[in-house]
Amino acid sequence: MPIATPLTELLGIRHPILSAPMDTIAGSRLTRAVSAAGGFGILGGGYGDRARLQVEAAELKGFAPFGIGFITWSLAKQPELLDIALEAQPQAVMLSFGDPAPFAPRIKASAARLICQVQSEDMAKQALDAGAEILIAQGTEAGGHGASRTTVDIVPAIVDLAAGRVPVVAAGGIADGRGLAAMMMLGASGVLIGTRFYASVEANGADAAKERIRTADPNDTVRGVIVDWSRNLFWPAPFTARTLVNDHIRRWTGREIELMQRASEIARDYAAAKMAGDFEIAAVFAGEAVGLIHDIPPAAEIVERIASEAEQLLAGRRNSLSSFPSPLAGEGGA
Amino acid sequence: MPIATPLTELLGIRHPILSAPMDTIAGSRLTRAVSAAGGFGILGGGYGDRARLQVEAAELKGFAPFGIGFITWSLAKQPELLDIALEAQPQAVMLSFGDPAPFAPRIKASAARLICQVQSEDMAKQALDAGAEILIAQGTEAGGHGASRTTVDIVPAIVDLAAGRVPVVAAGGIADGRGLAAMMMLGASGVLIGTRFYASVEANGADAAKERIRTADPNDTVRGVIVDWSRNLFWPAPFTARTLVNDHIRRWTGREIELMQRASEIARDYAAAKMAGDFEIAAVFAGEAVGLIHDIPPAAEIVERIASEAEQLLAGRRNSLSSFPSPLAGEGGA
Repeated sequence: MPIATPLTELLGIRHPILSAPMDTIAGSRLTRAVSAAGGFGILGGGYGDRARLQVEAAELKGFAPFGIGFITWSLAKQPELLDIALEAQPQAVMLSFGDPAPFAPRIKASAARLICQVQSEDMAKQALDAGAEILIAQGTEAGGHGASRTTVDIVPAIVDLAAGRVPVVAAGGIADGRGLAAMMMLGASGVLIGTRFYASVEANGADAAKERIRTADPNDTVRGVIVDWSRNLFWPAPFTARTLVNDHIRRWTGREIELMQRASEIARDYAAAKMAGDFEIAAVFAGEAVGLIHDIPPAAEIVERIASEAEQLLAGRRNSLSSFPSPLAGEGGA
Repeated sequence: MPIATPLTELLGIRHPILSAPMDTIAGSRLTRAVSAAGGFGILGGGYGDRARLQVEAAELKGFAPFGIGFITWSLAKQPELLDIALEAQPQAVMLSFGDPAPFAPRIKASAARLICQVQSEDMAKQALDAGAEILIAQGTEAGGHGASRTTVDIVPAIVDLAAGRVPVVAAGGIADGRGLAAMMMLGASGVLIGTRFYASVEANGADAAKERIRTADPNDTVRGVIVDWSRNLFWPAPFTARTLVNDHIRRWTGREIELMQRASEIARDYAAAKMAGDFEIAAVFAGEAVGLIHDIPPAAEIVERIASEAEQLLAGRRNSLSSFPSPLAGEGGA
């Protein structure tokens, strides 16, 4: 039996699984695949590439359900991109990393739900004040941009703060059904998953990047500013980016001040490496869940696996990854 | 119905809740209280204070069940302390932070189970090779000493590695029944809890320290070396200590090298502050779960609350901390 939560009801989806709007990685192809499998795909709005957004959003127009996600502080520089997004009639717009208030009225005046991702209680209050209808509580385990509180810490904190007014979705470190089931126990209504969907057939990433995620060791990710500063990209505090460790990060760790001073020069080399697909210089954004990722299947298979494993765990059936009997065998089984 | 797991079976306990062997905080009084309530209390072996260990262990002799925990690298300096521990006939000895191999044979030759706390896959392999009968997977959220991997990351990683051979207990950031239930979904057989029991009537900590934990904000803890170095105490890598932030930590953050150079002088001031109960200089060891702690009840009440909330969640009953219906209402309820 599928897991029904206030989130699945609000978004009209079968499984409480959202795919993260990963920059250019989460294109219309991944978004469609996740939604078609019963989850909720969210297109990455990226850093304001208007032409790309127009093409990707047009691909999704008429399709349902789907969302479009923006980096809020970046959107603030080109607020007209929100019109392009709304024109595609998404069921939700997700805002992360900045004050959602300036954009909330236009989103709420449309048919789209306002989803706000937060990393602290203060950000959650700001989002609720702006009219957020779904909160995403993101832990530091997440790939890409985020902050320092861990998933086990921030999820119950935001659940308590939301106090049932809006559904809370957990993000950061989740890549399997155990993670979804665990987050439900913490009071979440679903999960937002990035890295696991990066390593899928439909993600826009380079094959070599996906392969690095597939083979990465759980100790292979790090959160910091080196990747952003190497792109001449200066995110506001408290946000930093988690990526796989590579030669470039090893080289600059502890030398961030020099990196900042030489940012323009280094950004040229970084851009060239990215074009060339050299992932010992260019970053692969990925979260701590890499340790749970060992293949690159179609996104639909990922959705099905996670949903099915979580359903079994929540119904008190045997944990497929352990030989221990479920604590509730004979009590909670369906 | 109590949660039955391989851990509760192995230790003969009613609830899968272990109290952490927090240095001098976890004395015989807390240990007894946790075990009497159906959990498993573990006496803190501390840093080798032989007289204290003799007194505390003698208090527990004949009582059952209970455990005694050691800092492995510290025990290695006074291996005879293990004899004092075993003389008290504990049901388990817990070793953390170091190679358990030199001590495993004596423990396993006794009636005590060998519990090993680990922070990485390599440490887990070392512990299994030494004959560990229970593994504790500790996340960085934990108070006191630990390493960098988060609970959501390290718990499933160690569960997968143990592959059902031994029960895995989750530690780090757990202070309520939601946390216990979530860890069960990740494949753990129980939880080890520190900070929540520090803020209990029976813990040996100063009232002012307990009060700081009770009122702490979830952003108020930090992991680092300042507290250890200020005590002239140099832990081996990769271990650092999580404590509440105070004036002393704010003062020395970013000046660790100078602190190290002046360690002897600062250690005198630190020791004096500790004697005087000045917790703006002396540290209160506490984990990220401080945000979930708002009272200082008897330990038995803590055990009962956590067990009861987790039982309800795992049985698919309503989440008492959320107004959302359980995903399994009508399916998994008892």
